[in-house]
Amino acid sequence: MRQSQLFTRTQKNAPADEVAMNAQLLIRAGFIHKEMAGVYAYMPMGLRVLENIKKIVREEMNGVGGQEVMMTTLQPKEIWEKTDRWDDAKVDNWFKTKLVNGTELGVGLTHEEPIVDAISNYLSSYKDMPFSVYQIQNKFRNEKRAKSGLLRGREFLMKDMYTFSRNQREHEQEYEKIVAAYHRVYDRLGLGEITYRTYADGGIFTPRFSDEFQTLTEVGEDTIYVDEKKRVAINEEILSDENLEKLGLKKEDLVQKKGVEVGNTFHLESKYTDALDLYYNDENGEKQSIIMGCYGIGVSRLMGVVAELFADEKGLVWPENIAPYSVHLLNLGQDEEAEKIYNDLTSKGIEVLFDDREASAGEKFADSDLIGIPTRLVVSKKSLAAGGIEVKKRSESESSIVTVNEFLAQIG
Amino acid sequence: MRQSQLFTRTQKNAPADEVAMNAQLLIRAGFIHKEMAGVYAYMPMGLRVLENIKKIVREEMNGVGGQEVMMTTLQPKEIWEKTDRWDDAKVDNWFKTKLVNGTELGVGLTHEEPIVDAISNYLSSYKDMPFSVYQIQNKFRNEKRAKSGLLRGREFLMKDMYTFSRNQREHEQEYEKIVAAYHRVYDRLGLGEITYRTYADGGIFTPRFSDEFQTLTEVGEDTIYVDEKKRVAINEEILSDENLEKLGLKKEDLVQKKGVEVGNTFHLESKYTDALDLYYNDENGEKQSIIMGCYGIGVSRLMGVVAELFADEKGLVWPENIAPYSVHLLNLGQDEEAEKIYNDLTSKGIEVLFDDREASAGEKFADSDLIGIPTRLVVSKKSLAAGGIEVKKRSESESSIVTVNEFLAQIG
Repeated sequence: MRQSQLFTRTQKNAPADEVAMNAQLLIRAGFIHKEMAGVYAYMPMGLRVLENIKKIVREEMNGVGGQEVMMTTLQPKEIWEKTDRWDDAKVDNWFKTKLVNGTELGVGLTHEEPIVDAISNYLSSYKDMPFSVYQIQNKFRNEKRAKSGLLRGREFLMKDMYTFSRNQREHEQEYEKIVAAYHRVYDRLGLGEITYRTYADGGIFTPRFSDEFQTLTEVGEDTIYVDEKKRVAINEEILSDENLEKLGLKKEDLVQKKGVEVGNTFHLESKYTDALDLYYNDENGEKQSIIMGCYGIGVSRLMGVVAELFADEKGLVWPENIAPYSVHLLNLGQDEEAEKIYNDLTSKGIEVLFDDREASAGEKFADSDLIGIPTRLVVSKKSLAAGGIEVKKRSESESSIVTVNEFLAQIG
Repeated sequence: MRQSQLFTRTQKNAPADEVAMNAQLLIRAGFIHKEMAGVYAYMPMGLRVLENIKKIVREEMNGVGGQEVMMTTLQPKEIWEKTDRWDDAKVDNWFKTKLVNGTELGVGLTHEEPIVDAISNYLSSYKDMPFSVYQIQNKFRNEKRAKSGLLRGREFLMKDMYTFSRNQREHEQEYEKIVAAYHRVYDRLGLGEITYRTYADGGIFTPRFSDEFQTLTEVGEDTIYVDEKKRVAINEEILSDENLEKLGLKKEDLVQKKGVEVGNTFHLESKYTDALDLYYNDENGEKQSIIMGCYGIGVSRLMGVVAELFADEKGLVWPENIAPYSVHLLNLGQDEEAEKIYNDLTSKGIEVLFDDREASAGEKFADSDLIGIPTRLVVSKKSLAAGGIEVKKRSESESSIVTVNEFLAQIG
């Protein structure tokens, strides 16, 4: 992509009301546009990052047999009344709207009810299970405050998965398979080392704990206690001697940390399936309850977490596998050579942002640091005199001079 | 994909309140689930078709330089008041909602205002234009009636593009480039022959006509008059002697037809940019108005159109390039051979739905016809005795026996 053609520009300042660092940087670099508090639009480079994260999440969910669907945002109230989750006194963060004829509708904040309703068309026998369904879709939550940029949105992109099993043992297998896939997602995003499976409250329908996946960061809203050796943590909410004993954790091994929840997985027992009257017939033709699990990953939140964590005073620092482009090629007045290198790289399938603008070297360097593409290539009189192009990783301070062929050999 | 693992099943009947043939077939085949009138969820095979259509649309929009973004569903009313499109008396198909604090929000029904608002962060100089921005995103329209399945939704997937030009001449070039890309989209969907550029009302802001892209079908809601020789049409709404003369069309060359609008393109002049106070400075530093165009394609509607048009009494008949799978492989009691063929095909990168279920031959044939995958392969005792597998196109009635290698050579 030629930067001269890209319609976004970097900006000196984020909007005055934007207090979250992740959003400030992403706005200044031209990745997102703030529509209102907690509601952000994705500009071309922001959308590329988001699509890269979606791709990783999708591959891992497909890898554990997830079948992708796309549920609707508009929701009929009837199915939510069956589970007693319609009333604003019970669920306080609905956005609601109305048909012209006055019929109330919900604006999708989660999808347990509609998923169960949809699969009830297909599921009846023990032979139909286990299976898992997921979607990657916008959720809408009427948050009172939304000041954390992409870390807490009123409209945000989420991957939500649902499993359907015949019994607890089968559910357990599905659940742990998905937990393992979650760890692979965080690993691939470069967050594996600092993301902990964290025991948390399971809700009122199960005696079991739920699992949160907490990425350590000082801007996190959650307080957790980490057992570094066991690579697990416990949410402050459920920290009690009784629970520590249940979990086999010792107070003296725990360190208090701040975390941001980048995923969660719940045991739903048969609450939703029972409430929506979905059962199955077992091998003996007897009616049985269906055990559900649900599994969320905040896709746009992950973009915010990465932006927040992998930044320095100069700007964003994207990990290789979700960066909007692999290479940022800066032409400092050497049009012919730079054009040739741009063509060489793109013809090899390398995704390049090519700064072909008429702008000063200082402006190009500053923009490149702010945008945060992993590898910067500079073509200048100086670099050509030294025998090639200057290569620098965004995450490192040292640069070196290589020929184009050497660079292609390195990156290939 | 093993059909035994796919969680959807075909159904004998669509819901009683579903009157549109496209939705009846898509529901029965397990492609979509009806949430409410005009609101459909996409099950795995439906989502695959939708993604295939998106891919074609995206490729063609990228091909004319479109830059993809993702705007938001939640909309602040302020920007819509500036163009006088907030008041329900002016725009009667808004869905609206509220923040907890009572602030009214819109639920995105189109995106001219937010796009102009977003690009005002970046655009100031004549050097920044022309450019075009697009998104593929759900739109929400509070339709009084929604009885046409995917042909008219309250929640539906749309590609909307916006161009920004310095003057009318430049706008004209952008506009015609995009019209040409639209024709390529319909060609690739197999609708090119029966889809006509159709002159229609331009709205109150321009003396010019808009263009609709109308696909001929008896279930279409629009009446158009087609000039077969010139490959254009005129919408009944603007059929007058004066307009025919302007357009160089003659009444006697026109044939009345029913059509469904699968795209539209509008000249917006500078209505939205002026109203939102976005101008540019020309080469002489003088403030000038920005000329906009907008361009829509109904992505989910196209899925409905294809389902409706390319069907027969047995079910759906997907065109090759948007089909959920290329090959439907039916195992009629020859497990070992069928498994081997399934592995051979998938290892060559061919997308196969493999009917490995324990079901009768009759059931498998009927499901295969209903689902409508372009090529059906049958492995049976009979086919093996005849020397291979039975191949039949969904759109043809004749079948033939070929070896797996012959088939691979054909399809490759």
